[in-house]
Amino acid sequence: MPSSPIRKLVPFAESAKKKGTRIYHLNIGQPDIETPEVMLQAVRAYAEKVVAYSHSAGKETYREKIVRYYEGLGLKIKTDDIIVTAGASEAISFTMNSCLDAGDELIVPEPFYANYNGFSVAAGVQVIPVTSHIEDGFALPAIKDFELLINERTKGIMICNPSNPTGYVYSRQELQTLREIVLKHDLFLFVDEVYREFCYDGREHVSVLSLSDLEQHVVVFDSISKRYSACGARIGYMISRNAELIETAMKFAQARLSPPGFGQVAAEACLEVPKEYLQDVLSEYNDRRQTLVEELRKIPGVICPEPGGAFYAFAQLPVEDSEHFCRWLLEEFSFEGATVMLAPGSGFYASQGLGKNQVRIAYVLNSEDLRAAMRCLKQALEVYASSVEEKGIEKTSG
Amino acid sequence: MPSSPIRKLVPFAESAKKKGTRIYHLNIGQPDIETPEVMLQAVRAYAEKVVAYSHSAGKETYREKIVRYYEGLGLKIKTDDIIVTAGASEAISFTMNSCLDAGDELIVPEPFYANYNGFSVAAGVQVIPVTSHIEDGFALPAIKDFELLINERTKGIMICNPSNPTGYVYSRQELQTLREIVLKHDLFLFVDEVYREFCYDGREHVSVLSLSDLEQHVVVFDSISKRYSACGARIGYMISRNAELIETAMKFAQARLSPPGFGQVAAEACLEVPKEYLQDVLSEYNDRRQTLVEELRKIPGVICPEPGGAFYAFAQLPVEDSEHFCRWLLEEFSFEGATVMLAPGSGFYASQGLGKNQVRIAYVLNSEDLRAAMRCLKQALEVYASSVEEKGIEKTSG
Repeated sequence: MPSSPIRKLVPFAESAKKKGTRIYHLNIGQPDIETPEVMLQAVRAYAEKVVAYSHSAGKETYREKIVRYYEGLGLKIKTDDIIVTAGASEAISFTMNSCLDAGDELIVPEPFYANYNGFSVAAGVQVIPVTSHIEDGFALPAIKDFELLINERTKGIMICNPSNPTGYVYSRQELQTLREIVLKHDLFLFVDEVYREFCYDGREHVSVLSLSDLEQHVVVFDSISKRYSACGARIGYMISRNAELIETAMKFAQARLSPPGFGQVAAEACLEVPKEYLQDVLSEYNDRRQTLVEELRKIPGVICPEPGGAFYAFAQLPVEDSEHFCRWLLEEFSFEGATVMLAPGSGFYASQGLGKNQVRIAYVLNSEDLRAAMRCLKQALEVYASSVEEKGIEKTSG
Repeated sequence: MPSSPIRKLVPFAESAKKKGTRIYHLNIGQPDIETPEVMLQAVRAYAEKVVAYSHSAGKETYREKIVRYYEGLGLKIKTDDIIVTAGASEAISFTMNSCLDAGDELIVPEPFYANYNGFSVAAGVQVIPVTSHIEDGFALPAIKDFELLINERTKGIMICNPSNPTGYVYSRQELQTLREIVLKHDLFLFVDEVYREFCYDGREHVSVLSLSDLEQHVVVFDSISKRYSACGARIGYMISRNAELIETAMKFAQARLSPPGFGQVAAEACLEVPKEYLQDVLSEYNDRRQTLVEELRKIPGVICPEPGGAFYAFAQLPVEDSEHFCRWLLEEFSFEGATVMLAPGSGFYASQGLGKNQVRIAYVLNSEDLRAAMRCLKQALEVYASSVEEKGIEKTSG
């Protein structure tokens, strides 16, 4: 399994820190938003004497609360449709292991969340990319692009909606298109909906669970990590109305005994989180998004489609090799004592050579820091351009 | 992946409970021992505002404490040799995925912990059993038995020491034998040492980390689950001095982002657990062990080697098919309003047909309940024998 370009940057960030340079971390999806107090309070009030295994599918009481959360979204699921997991990560692993055999293929629009690669390697599954394009804001590729890739080894399609890394929110029409492909070719449809609550400008999030006739095809991945800024609790879950699929996934769930116990206690308090919490968080991210896009678009040569959801923007920079540029930012550049850490775009593509002038920017800092980070980036791009011209600096990244 | 015989019993246990029958649960390794107060207190004092991802290898501060715990055992490891995981389960998964390719073989003495099957299926690894025998207390099989199984696909040997399910504690001599096999054939040696602290009658636990020249070969699995009765926290770890192996395993660790956060907070308090805690727990388990073995040996036709460690006994019963008997115990039997739930032996063997008259008994109940459970079992075996004779009851289990 190859190292991701993001990971390769870590040692350079360490050395920048050692030099006393402040780093604006826009490279990872770790929000600075506070976890709801009611969830932390639930953990602080832990009263059990023995920290025992929970049910392998997760605490029954927690699964009932998940059912109620989905009821609130107008979606009907049962506790038996849910397996609680160590983050959405484990849900993806269980699903790949349950639905695909080694050598089977899964079509995924690229750029996609780089960690999907890790789970597919572990499951022996081939991720087959279908390329989406910055020109149309990373919309769903055309149906013919999917059909060109479908063969007897193809077992499913996986999307992230809203998308990490592009922030794209799939329309009802696009999901209907996927529904048709899936029914026509009898495929699974895996949808990562962990950013569901983060849709901006009145965009509607359409859950794949609301589409008809897909009971046997759909698995949804969900998590408290981003919604409630509780990444470290490691609580996610998979949902499927396909009983046979759940039965198979339960065998993997049973092998690892149970999901994290304390995290489930925190997660179970989700329903008590005041409505205002998510409204405030959404409003905060929306401000940051507008700030980021506005500032980015002021920089000559930068192209940034407006992200409709999640908390990422995927932008094109006026550089040839963003991996080299991102390393240079950490190794050689600082402006007013600070620099910026971004995620090189190529790490989100499976197709060789794509995304080389792109970066993912996570807007997980407050608007003031974002503005400072963008001033820093603007300055950096100017210096970088002249360095490249003047010194012909080494472009091959390690 | 086939359902384990233990899992198959669950619905019958449910129906026994519905009839109001008390069940003595000796089927699973969920102790009734209280988690140390200092660990619970650490979680209750959680003061972070954002429940953030930890390092993918686990909190640096926690890994330092693991290093100090091992120092206390006279074993020298570094924080970089450790990856903290969601229970030892995830450590086993990472290790299998890192060290073996699909189709590779791992030799495991049987009977073995049934969940190893789940992890090997997920990793595409073939578990090749080498049979140990009740007659010699499930000692390490002869070296020739191992060598008969070694071929070009063999990549490693895995043992559990002290053993779940047999309670066997491997001697220094046996570990030296394994060391020789491993060096001669250049194999990995994976050792599950989660029951390390539970050795009775002055038996010494020899960690495989203390053997020379095995730095490149050994991975140890460890966990707080049993030691501190904190199964639900889901905190374990893998240890290896093989830097390349750790580097590969880290890619799987990074794909799932981080181990459970709150669980790490509890785990980090381990070093503050008073020495008396483990001494008391050991003494309690030792009492139970003696009670169990004494009572079991009073039952005609029962053979039970003395378990030297962990909290399991693996016994032979005077029945033809323990899977049927265990189901019958739940479905049809009760004595003084109670029955016993045991784990059928066959589930711990990979070889077809072995262990059919054996059961694993976890002594996770207090001595009084254990005595009552054994009276119940004695009575049950009598009734069962006469039912079989009289009615010729159906012996094929579901």
